[in-house]
Amino acid sequence: MRLSELRFIDLLDAFRSSEPTPGGGSASALSGAIGASLLAMVAGLPKPRVRTPEDEQRLADARSRCVAISDRLAALMDRDSEAYDGVVAAFRLPKTSEDEKAARTAMIQEAMRSATEAPVQVMRVCLDAIHLAETVAGLGNPSAASDVEVGLELLGAGLRGAGVNVAINLTSLKDQAYVGAIKKETLQLEMDASRGHAAAIAALRDAS
Amino acid sequence: MRLSELRFIDLLDAFRSSEPTPGGGSASALSGAIGASLLAMVAGLPKPRVRTPEDEQRLADARSRCVAISDRLAALMDRDSEAYDGVVAAFRLPKTSEDEKAARTAMIQEAMRSATEAPVQVMRVCLDAIHLAETVAGLGNPSAASDVEVGLELLGAGLRGAGVNVAINLTSLKDQAYVGAIKKETLQLEMDASRGHAAAIAALRDAS
Repeated sequence: MRLSELRFIDLLDAFRSSEPTPGGGSASALSGAIGASLLAMVAGLPKPRVRTPEDEQRLADARSRCVAISDRLAALMDRDSEAYDGVVAAFRLPKTSEDEKAARTAMIQEAMRSATEAPVQVMRVCLDAIHLAETVAGLGNPSAASDVEVGLELLGAGLRGAGVNVAINLTSLKDQAYVGAIKKETLQLEMDASRGHAAAIAALRDAS
Repeated sequence: MRLSELRFIDLLDAFRSSEPTPGGGSASALSGAIGASLLAMVAGLPKPRVRTPEDEQRLADARSRCVAISDRLAALMDRDSEAYDGVVAAFRLPKTSEDEKAARTAMIQEAMRSATEAPVQVMRVCLDAIHLAETVAGLGNPSAASDVEVGLELLGAGLRGAGVNVAINLTSLKDQAYVGAIKKETLQLEMDASRGHAAAIAALRDAS
């Protein structure tokens, strides 16, 4: 069963269990999914601060994109766990003969790469939502400012949590060109997230 | 139905809807509940770094306390929404006669105070879990370091998100002695959380 179809109390049990998945990668995606949903809520509240039809369209677009991002992050909860299960399965491959050892090493590298891609995706879509928060903060109903702030906290935690998972996986990867490219991208994502968070908070202050 | 009994996808829909609850307060409790569950998971993994029976006991205690905190935060998701529903209901009370106005004002103040207590509780228990993270980081299986870091991110987001909700509610409260006491406590909780996060990360580095 998909993680997002579990009842929340059963999801808590799944995170608590000592099974390898779900773990921090899925938890990061979950945090971002709730954060993006809060932004979608604020963007859909009555009494927005829109002044023009263009404002109204921008806010409606922000809302539908936040809903899509939240759905994507809910799907990434499963993607992350499946990718990590692939790593565990690769480590369990036989390693008696030289051929087996070589095949196992190749499988581990491939599985690790998939397990790296999932949290990179989480980081990218959390950043998209953080950028949308600036629009929601400026045009949404100002009485929901605290919900925008909580949304930003959860999206930031999701992005940084996914970043921790990317970093740990990179230490096992041998393709240094790939490792270098992902390190560069994730550093940029973290800096952009920090800037986007500050811009959204400034927009909230201006709108209040 | 309790929020924690909803399927995760239905919970996302509930956060996205323009109904007043659940909002940022419940989302903050949710984030902390997942964070504490991740710490419980790490504390229960095989191959911990315990060296003495006392270490083993400390880690087992940390695990059971993280489970209890996670359950408490799941219950606080509902508590926060119920308290906020109480505020909305108080604002809808009749205000035609002077008696009605006075009764309504008193009910709003009482409801606002309950709606402030719920996120203060969320902050307190998130901080308890952040302190336990130092034990889990030092004594748990070091291969799950990234899960401890994600747990800290989610607990920090939950604590700060709850803090935003406390702050917004305090602006409507008239009892200045209460407002002052809560402001002082929440500032301390935020500083202690920041210090506790850093101490847990240091323990992770020392253990790796």
